Order: sequence, then structure tokens, then C-alpha cells
Amino acid sequence: MTSFTVHTAPNTPAASAERADGVQDGALAWDFKGWTVRQLDRVERAMGDWVPAQAPAGLGEAMRYAVLDGGKRLRPLLTLAAAQSVAGQPDGDVPELALRAACAVELIHAYSLVHDDMPCMDNDVLRRGKPTVHVRYGEAQALLAGDALQALAFELLLPDEPVLDEALAARLCRVLARAAGHEGMAGGQAIDLAGVGQVLDQSQLEDMHRRKTGALLLASVTMGGLAAGASPAQAAALAAYGRALGLAFQVVDDILDVTADTATLGKTAGKDAAADKPTFVSLLGLQPARDYAQRLLDQALTALAQGGLPDTRTLERLAHSVVHRSH
Amino acid sequence: MTSFTVHTAPNTPAASAERADGVQDGALAWDFKGWTVRQLDRVERAMGDWVPAQAPAGLGEAMRYAVLDGGKRLRPLLTLAAAQSVAGQPDGDVPELALRAACAVELIHAYSLVHDDMPCMDNDVLRRGKPTVHVRYGEAQALLAGDALQALAFELLLPDEPVLDEALAARLCRVLARAAGHEGMAGGQAIDLAGVGQVLDQSQLEDMHRRKTGALLLASVTMGGLAAGASPAQAAALAAYGRALGLAFQVVDDILDVTADTATLGKTAGKDAAADKPTFVSLLGLQPARDYAQRLLDQALTALAQGGLPDTRTLERLAHSVVHRSH
Repeated sequence: MTSFTVHTAPNTPAASAERADGVQDGALAWDFKGWTVRQLDRVERAMGDWVPAQAPAGLGEAMRYAVLDGGKRLRPLLTLAAAQSVAGQPDGDVPELALRAACAVELIHAYSLVHDDMPCMDNDVLRRGKPTVHVRYGEAQALLAGDALQALAFELLLPDEPVLDEALAARLCRVLARAAGHEGMAGGQAIDLAGVGQVLDQSQLEDMHRRKTGALLLASVTMGGLAAGASPAQAAALAAYGRALGLAFQVVDDILDVTADTATLGKTAGKDAAADKPTFVSLLGLQPARDYAQRLLDQALTALAQGGLPDTRTLERLAHSVVHRSH
Repeated sequence: MTSFTVHTAPNTPAASAERADGVQDGALAWDFKGWTVRQLDRVERAMGDWVPAQAPAGLGEAMRYAVLDGGKRLRPLLTLAAAQSVAGQPDGDVPELALRAACAVELIHAYSLVHDDMPCMDNDVLRRGKPTVHVRYGEAQALLAGDALQALAFELLLPDEPVLDEALAARLCRVLARAAGHEGMAGGQAIDLAGVGQVLDQSQLEDMHRRKTGALLLASVTMGGLAAGASPAQAAALAAYGRALGLAFQVVDDILDVTADTATLGKTAGKDAAADKPTFVSLLGLQPARDYAQRLLDQALTALAQGGLPDTRTLERLAHSVVHRSH
């Protein structure tokens, strides 16, 4: 049994420790908020270093605007937590490739948002509480910044340093490329485009979301596990967790689209309903959608418990935070 | 000294053989047109197999429309020729990764054209003699098809088959990602965007083109060499050739923009001049631009001759065809 450092109150007897958010972990307290703060700091610093300010003709500025200083960073947190769950050190160092993978998935996510917000797609003017990239820098620069961010995701996984394991980097690139491409995110977006005003049944809706958002969330977890050397059983557990969590994320997104306001979301609320897009809420109703999200959370946690991972608490907490988030 | 098969007329005495285009190679005839036909067939069949028809909601159709049945395929030809120049077999089989690299660079090129043609960029309606992708499928689908093609380029380099050398695949991905990204093609496009109506001097214009088109042409040659196991000296010669050829390509492009008509080009002629974009012709004048292209051709051929490559004739002929093309 691995023991864990109690970060907020190192001298508190572990058995009675209570976390800042009031949840007890039993024998050992685990400071999830502190963990989040430290991982976010790690990710923000890495992105600040790796997303180039010096790219020519304003491109670097647009890329950095799209990526830095905003976002929940759910995908990088999942990648780091997955890597740490394999290593059994939930707040420990991670291999450099795990940090690179964490940033790479976020770059893919960020580029998709830049393109998604453009007038020919969702035509959205607000993202993370700020004007969208095309509003700030023009459509052409937004298009290029998105394109360059996708390339940069792969560049991050393939630095020059010969210390990195190139075969492992190739496997990470493979997972990321498939999650981003026609079988994954881009394919899901195409279904989404075609689905406006259409009646989809639940399996069609789930297929769309499995690709559109689920594939990259799954890749985040998978890449973290790969980078940390997960065994096949561990990788399978992480994948099952990632799939259930990815779907839960989207169900909750649909719930928030109708229940939260724009200021809380940091993006335009109610836009799916306004655009006549099929959602889990429009298909199932609000309370059944909430129940479904809870069942998916249970699935994710059950899968996680069965993989022989040395420490799953951070991944558990992340799953809870996805399903119970307010924005 | 490697000997070469004479493909069009196997029984013709090699010393007196004359190719269909009337150029003599000296002791051995080398059927460049036949070579081109065979490599194009190889590339078209591979792309037909690898660019997915089954991608959802019309995405696959748009991707295939953007890529198949059109284009000079200069980049794949360069990749295959570079691989064959290392192997010393100008019409021989190439390693599977070389063919994958040839198609991957073409996918990056194709995606850039799809995005470049969009209304927020060049707003072009004609490409390769056909309506552009956004005209045919709508802007949103064109945006997604371009995005998915970029991801697919990396997917092609990273298939499941364990027979492929993953470390080599990683190195190919690295070259491609950098050529496509902010340091390469996307960066050059940003400079191009910012340069409309600006006065650029020759070094600024060359920096733009070195990134915008040169980086991917260089990558085509580099990847072919890498996939075939080029030595450092061979790789350096291929790179010097690729750099000179990349710039020559753009100088000739600028010349054709003012001297060819739309029907010959298969795309809108005169658009750079109309858009008040700086070009080598506007900067140097028409005849000096032609002289410059010739000097770059000479540079490319000189570099090629110094790398200890077993056979460079196909690369030589490709360089000639780039500089002396009519479209």
C-alpha cells in the first residue's frame, strides 16, 4: 500500500483529516484541491514555454491567446492523473512525455474550439469569458492558429531530445491523431453539423459524442497511462474509465446548456437548444439526463477499481468533479 | 555503378535510347515519363485506400474530393524519388513508410489548399479545374475536412502494423509536424496574410516562401531519404536540394501567375497580382525572376551531385520539371 503525503495539513493525523471540500477519504486524506492547483501550475508553465510567442506575423500571439490563461484543463489533468495512477504517486513527478501528452491533448482541444467558434461553424463570440479568437484576430488568423495548434500538438510529442523514447512517442502520436481525426473528434463534429434539425436516437447521439468529445477525453487518459508504462490490464481499466467519463462529460454539458447562465459557463448558454441541436436533455428530459450522468459516473468508478492501479483517487475525484461541475 | 531498366523500350541499345521527351541521358536511357506514370499510379492507389470513404456525415466524401483525382503530386513524387535515390533503384519498390510519407505530405498540402481557398483566406472558387471544397460541400465541412486531413497525415505514418519501425515513424512525424506548423507552412501563411499590400524585400519574401511552400517540399525530400535510411551526407545533400527546389518552385509559381492563363493553371491566374501580394516578379521583374529560378535549379542540381547518392537522375528530372513547368 502506497502512502500519500497530506499537503494541506501534514501534521494532522491522517485518519481524521478532512479535506477543504469536506469529503473524507477514510484512512488517508488526499488534498484534491491542492493537487489540482499544483498540476494546473505545471501545465500552465509548460504551455507558456511550449506555445511559441515568436511564431511570425501575429500567429504566435493568436495561438497563445487561444491556449493560455483559460480553460478548465480537464484533459491535461486527466492525463497527469492517469500517469500518476499507474505510478502510484498521485502528486509525484511524471515522465516528461506525460506532461507533453497532457499539453498536446489540450492543444488539440484548443484548436477545435478556435475552429468551432468560427462564423461558418457555431459563430460564437465568447469563449472562456473572452472574445473568441476570430473576433480578436480575424477569421483568417483564427483558421491558421487552429491549424498550427494541431501541428504543435504533434511537435510537442516529438522534441529533439534523444532522451525521449521515440517508439513511445510514436504510440502517443498514434492515439492522439486517431482521437483528433475522422474517426474521432473531426468525425463527431461532422455528425454534429449534419445533425442540426435532425432527430437522432440515443445511440446516434452517443456515437456523435463518443467521437466529438469522448475520443479526446479517452485519449487523455490513455496517453497518460501509456506514458507511465501501464500494463494491459491497467490500460484497459483506464480506457473503460475514459469512455464512461467522456460520455458523462457530454451529458452534463447538455444539462448545463439549459440550466446554467452564460456568466457561469464562460460561454454562450442555451445555444444548443437555440440551434435546434439534439441533446441528451432534449432526448431524455432533464432529470433522466441527470440520472444517466450519475450511472456513467458509477460505471467509470467501477472500471477504475478493477484495473490493479496502485492509486486511483485522483481519477475518482476528477470523475466526480466532471459530473458535479457547475460550468 | 547501378544499372537501370529501360522501361519503354527494353530491347533498345541503352547508349542510343532516346526518351519520349527527347532528352538523352548519355550512356543509359531513363524513362522519366514512365517513372512518373508508375509512381502516380502507386500514390493514387494508396491514397484511394487510405483516405477514408466511410468517415461520417459526408466528411469522408469531402476529404476524398479534396485529395483524390487531381494535383500534380509533386510532393509524393519527391518523397519517392528521394527514397529511390538512396536505394539506388529509381523505379524500384520503396519501404512502406516511404509510400506512407509520400501520401502524408500530400495530405498536409491538400488540407492547406482546402483552408487556403476558404472565403476568409483567398476566397477561391476553382482548384485543379474543379469547384473548391467549400463551394462544393460548404464552409463548415471544408474546415472539418481540412482539419481531419491534417490528422490523417499523422495517422498514415502510424499504422497499427507492428512491422513498421516506430522510432523511424516518430522521426518522420517530427519532420512533418514542424514543416506543417508555425515554423513552417502555417507560419508562412501568416506572413503571407500580413504581407498583402506591404512592401517586402527579397529576404522577407524568401523567408515567407521558405516556410509557406518550401518547408513542405523540403520535408517531402527529407522524409523520403529518412524512410530509405539515408546517411548524414546523403540527408544533407537531399536537404540542400530540397531547399533550393522549394524556393525555385515558388519563383516559378509567381512567374506563372502572370504569364499563364486560368485554364492552363487549373486555378485562378493573376490572383496574386490582383490581391496586391508581393511576388518575385513584382520585386525582381519577369526576366530576372526567370534567371533566379534557373540559378536555384543549378544550386539544387549541384547539391544533389555532392551527396554520394547512388542515383539522382529522377530527382534531377523532377527539379527540371518544376522549373520548366507550364502550370
